[in-house]
Amino acid sequence: MSQVYGRVALIGLGLIASSMFWAMRRTGLATEVTGYSRSQETRDTATRIGLCDRICDTAAEAVEGADLVVLAVPVGAMGDVAAEIAPMLKPGATVTDVGSVKRHVIEAVGPHVPDGVHFVPGHPLAGTEHSGPESGFAELFDNRWTLLVPPEGTDPAAIDRLRALWEGMGALVDEMDADHHDLVLAVTSHAPHLIAYTMVGVADDLRRVTDTEVIKYSAAGFRDFTRIAASDPTMWRDVFLTNKDATLEILGRFTEELFALQRAIRTGDGGHLHDYFTRTRAIRRGVIEAGQDTDAPDFGRGRAKT
Amino acid sequence: MSQVYGRVALIGLGLIASSMFWAMRRTGLATEVTGYSRSQETRDTATRIGLCDRICDTAAEAVEGADLVVLAVPVGAMGDVAAEIAPMLKPGATVTDVGSVKRHVIEAVGPHVPDGVHFVPGHPLAGTEHSGPESGFAELFDNRWTLLVPPEGTDPAAIDRLRALWEGMGALVDEMDADHHDLVLAVTSHAPHLIAYTMVGVADDLRRVTDTEVIKYSAAGFRDFTRIAASDPTMWRDVFLTNKDATLEILGRFTEELFALQRAIRTGDGGHLHDYFTRTRAIRRGVIEAGQDTDAPDFGRGRAKT
Ligand SMILES: NC(=O)c1ccc[n+]([C@@H]2O[C@H](COP(=O)([O-])OP(=O)(O)OC[C@H]3O[C@@H](n4cnc5c(N)ncnc54)[C@H](OP(=O)(O)O)[C@@H]3O)[C@@H](O)[C@H]2O)c1
Ligand SMILES: NC(=O)c1ccc[n+]([C@@H]2O[C@H](COP(=O)([O-])OP(=O)(O)OC[C@H]3O[C@@H](n4cnc5c(N)ncnc54)[C@H](OP(=O)(O)O)[C@@H]3O)[C@@H](O)[C@H]2O)c1
Repeated sequence: MSQVYGRVALIGLGLIASSMFWAMRRTGLATEVTGYSRSQETRDTATRIGLCDRICDTAAEAVEGADLVVLAVPVGAMGDVAAEIAPMLKPGATVTDVGSVKRHVIEAVGPHVPDGVHFVPGHPLAGTEHSGPESGFAELFDNRWTLLVPPEGTDPAAIDRLRALWEGMGALVDEMDADHHDLVLAVTSHAPHLIAYTMVGVADDLRRVTDTEVIKYSAAGFRDFTRIAASDPTMWRDVFLTNKDATLEILGRFTEELFALQRAIRTGDGGHLHDYFTRTRAIRRGVIEAGQDTDAPDFGRGRAKT
Repeated sequence: MSQVYGRVALIGLGLIASSMFWAMRRTGLATEVTGYSRSQETRDTATRIGLCDRICDTAAEAVEGADLVVLAVPVGAMGDVAAEIAPMLKPGATVTDVGSVKRHVIEAVGPHVPDGVHFVPGHPLAGTEHSGPESGFAELFDNRWTLLVPPEGTDPAAIDRLRALWEGMGALVDEMDADHHDLVLAVTSHAPHLIAYTMVGVADDLRRVTDTEVIKYSAAGFRDFTRIAASDPTMWRDVFLTNKDATLEILGRFTEELFALQRAIRTGDGGHLHDYFTRTRAIRRGVIEAGQDTDAPDFGRGRAKT
């Protein structure tokens, strides 16, 4: 894989940005990568671990002369960051982002992007429960989908180039409309995260079952929820506040179905339960066949545990 | 580890029973292990893969002369199986089970256990989404808790011996009252499973988001739910029907909390969301410190994927 961009600027140096740096370096996709994060602490850590070719003290400095600028901060902060860097953007450059919600980012960032600069919003569907500059790794995007949601009229060449970058980082790339993206993600990510947070909160709240019991006996299913519910609180607060409508719609559907299953339990309708539980297995098979998860029991951790 | 029982009979030859066999064989915990499953197909598979020292054509034959009889069938089938084997039980033998619900098993099995035979119900808190005789492995119970729930007045020597067997199979062992067990498991296992089944069902049902999209983009969180929702439908139907009260109580609490979080999203109360999401992280830390899960991002599968 050869170079796709000259200079790339990463604004925000957390899990996603640091993974992008290591993935770009793996196959030399950019000539130089500059980085900026708002806190001195994160910038110092980045310098110490060799994250980016150059860490800058201001966003303006990082962006100057960049061919691609990647906004990798929480969704709620995208607008302010875009306003800050807008004056420094080079004509012909591309601005993208990696935010988990797309309609909101388009509305918050779009107006700041000057004429002559391309804006191609994106979202890599890959992540872990860890965050910060030290959590990134080059393989994060391998075989995972990245969705690009370019507004109508975007220069096709700018889209193609960004696509080439993501493919170079190992990702599969699809294009999609922003509203559809936000609905699909409400199903595959936002609602599941809220549900996991809720279940872990309930366990923590119960008087009659202690936290010690919840922790010791978590291997019976609960621990998968605790992993999801350990994700960054700021990132997720912003996701729910900015993808409100789609998330609430899916949660409404979820509550309806949950009530139907609760009724089946209450009335002893084993047939309904059995049918429902049989139907959901097909989706799992699909996920495995599509290469989006491992078929090893317990994600393979079963045999590797301490 | 030396021998704990002479002859052990496994009734039911699925994930749990087959894992017990491999775990017992690993350190020679029993002199001979006999096995029985209701279907010829499962018995043939067991014979083919060398599961058990001897596969029997009837439960009666498997149980004859056994020092320990393990009931490893779905919770709803425990009573019938106990009635069938009761006449063959050797005086001084111990009957145990591995069912995921304990009050129901005690009520269904207890009355069939003859005088002079010990009854020590148990539940290993370890499993995977796979089932059947070929899904077992010796390490399944390593460092996982097994809960014993002996009825009052049970012979302490019989309890100690069963505890020694589980410890020999790698497990940590606790004793607990049956009702408390059923409440704790409703929190750590039964409610999470129902919630995961529900969320996967919702995804499958939506008209505006296709199954293909749900599958391709599952890595954003949803795929963890699909794993849980791929568990055996019969086993889980039985769990919900026989642990009805505790499951419904926890689901009621869950729904209350979910409504509160939905309200926070609707009213834009970011502070409430951020606080809630911060609190749930402590539980995850506890799970990892207790050695009940790995701290590797994405359960370690992130770097090992295809
Ligand atoms: N984590 C995932 O699973 C995942 C997956 C796909 C997409 N995303 C999206 O990717 C973006 C970054 O997520 P991440 O996981 O990489 O985050 P992260 O590891 O938590 O890092 C966040 C970065 O944003 C900066 N930041 C936080 N609040 C800010 C603010 N108010 N103004 C300016 N900068 C701020 C942080 O700076 P300091 O460290 O200097 O405070 C840090 O550099 C988010 O939009 C998220 O929705 C995340
Ligand atoms: N899977 C878990 O994660 C897990 C964890 C802890 C405890 N448990 C408990 O362990 C027990 C066994 O679960 P498993 O996962 O090992 O099951 P499994 O792999 O699905 O195997 C079930 C076994 O039970 C037999 N069986 C099914 N229905 C029966 C019936 N109506 N009458 C008699 N035998 C019947 C099957 O026989 P055929 O194959 O011949 O049909 C098979 O031998 C259940 O009580 C479950 O609650 C499961």
